[in-house]
Amino acid sequence: MKQKPILSIVKIGGAIIEDSIALKTFLEDFSAIQGPKILVHGGGRDASKMEERLGIETQMHQGRRITSAQSLEVISMVYAGKTNKTIVALLQSMGCNAIGLSGADANCIKSHKRTGTEIDYGFVGDIDEVNTDHIAALINHFCPVFCAITHDGKGQLLNTNADTITSAIATAMSETHQVNLYYCFEKQGVLLDIDNPESLVKSLNKNYYKELLDQGVIAAGMVPKLQNCFEAIDKGVHQVVIGPNTLFRETSTNYTKITAE
Amino acid sequence: MKQKPILSIVKIGGAIIEDSIALKTFLEDFSAIQGPKILVHGGGRDASKMEERLGIETQMHQGRRITSAQSLEVISMVYAGKTNKTIVALLQSMGCNAIGLSGADANCIKSHKRTGTEIDYGFVGDIDEVNTDHIAALINHFCPVFCAITHDGKGQLLNTNADTITSAIATAMSETHQVNLYYCFEKQGVLLDIDNPESLVKSLNKNYYKELLDQGVIAAGMVPKLQNCFEAIDKGVHQVVIGPNTLFRETSTNYTKITAE
Repeated sequence: MKQKPILSIVKIGGAIIEDSIALKTFLEDFSAIQGPKILVHGGGRDASKMEERLGIETQMHQGRRITSAQSLEVISMVYAGKTNKTIVALLQSMGCNAIGLSGADANCIKSHKRTGTEIDYGFVGDIDEVNTDHIAALINHFCPVFCAITHDGKGQLLNTNADTITSAIATAMSETHQVNLYYCFEKQGVLLDIDNPESLVKSLNKNYYKELLDQGVIAAGMVPKLQNCFEAIDKGVHQVVIGPNTLFRETSTNYTKITAE
Repeated sequence: MKQKPILSIVKIGGAIIEDSIALKTFLEDFSAIQGPKILVHGGGRDASKMEERLGIETQMHQGRRITSAQSLEVISMVYAGKTNKTIVALLQSMGCNAIGLSGADANCIKSHKRTGTEIDYGFVGDIDEVNTDHIAALINHFCPVFCAITHDGKGQLLNTNADTITSAIATAMSETHQVNLYYCFEKQGVLLDIDNPESLVKSLNKNYYKELLDQGVIAAGMVPKLQNCFEAIDKGVHQVVIGPNTLFRETSTNYTKITAE
């Protein structure tokens, strides 16, 4: 059997986007990744700041944003406009042929408005379909940079969690590619003690994860991230790594590798 | 000689973007255009409104925006975020496979910061190069929707007039395509009397244009538009039409056709 071509998919979080020096360093490392690659970025903190400037109240429920019409407008502006284009222009200056996209562009990610939940999350989209043909056509020429916006195919933009977008793209692209998935953030990876970088878990399989969950040592914010990771592995993603924003430095050895067994 | 494939390039202005019903009607007509096509949109009025909401002073000089760093941020948000993605989502709902772009995306339009002028226009870019290979790759699969932002290739986004972007793309793509260029706005076309739609000039060549200029009957705002049109014709664009936002209705007969001779 012919081996599938490698595709690297990288997610960066909100904190690095606000730190222009760290962002530039990260993007230089990202540019150097060989072969086809996709970047997905969040930006919730920046959107909240813009909401504050505009006098719009940021509504959250259990760490998830409730997206009013006003809030969706701000998200479109900050994610797809400011953040996405800033990243694209920087990558272009580094010789990476970036193309910035929302899930509406090229109909890449279709979702439906979330319904039937205890509270109304507003204009939040749960993903139905990733258009692998269109993404495959794009990665032949360009490096797609996705922001955390999808659409319902009926003209409505929807706010979708960037981690979820990342794993949905990774899973869908695994049909045709050997996908290596990287979640970058401000920590070293999965830590047994959140305040101690020395407590890094270098390798995490399902059994060990369950054990750590039972012991209650996994930070609350990490749980949905790790669930996404194991789901991705189960659905055919070749490899998942959670690590720091400096993950792609040649000298980098500290990160958490997620494995099935 | 083999005939070049037809490419339709359409520019819409700021007024229609603020009128959601007119915009939807226009986009339905645009969706129905056969063959490869590109849409370019402005959005200056909407950007000015957002500046007002954010307490940023909109600075203008002879009808051109002076683009401070703060103003560039707003422009990135409004043009590339809000307006571009709203249009893309609507086009997708109409079966048009739109992909929203700034000139930084896929390195489509490279410019340099304007210098050597009497006043400092700030982050305004004059176009150096349109990347026809990348645009050609995109129109094979998608319908590019460009906003009025370019980049300098060194990481800096720049604000560039949407009419200028449109004619630059049209001129560059004329090498390989028979380009039909359409400027849509709120008037019927070139009017001898701006308040009288009956005074429409249905066909305008260079000599007649010079005559009208000498008579002072061309509205000030139309002069740069028409200069762009004649320049495009001179540089190989097949056909230029200036007309109303309803230009692509089957019943439409009122517009101004720009011809060389």
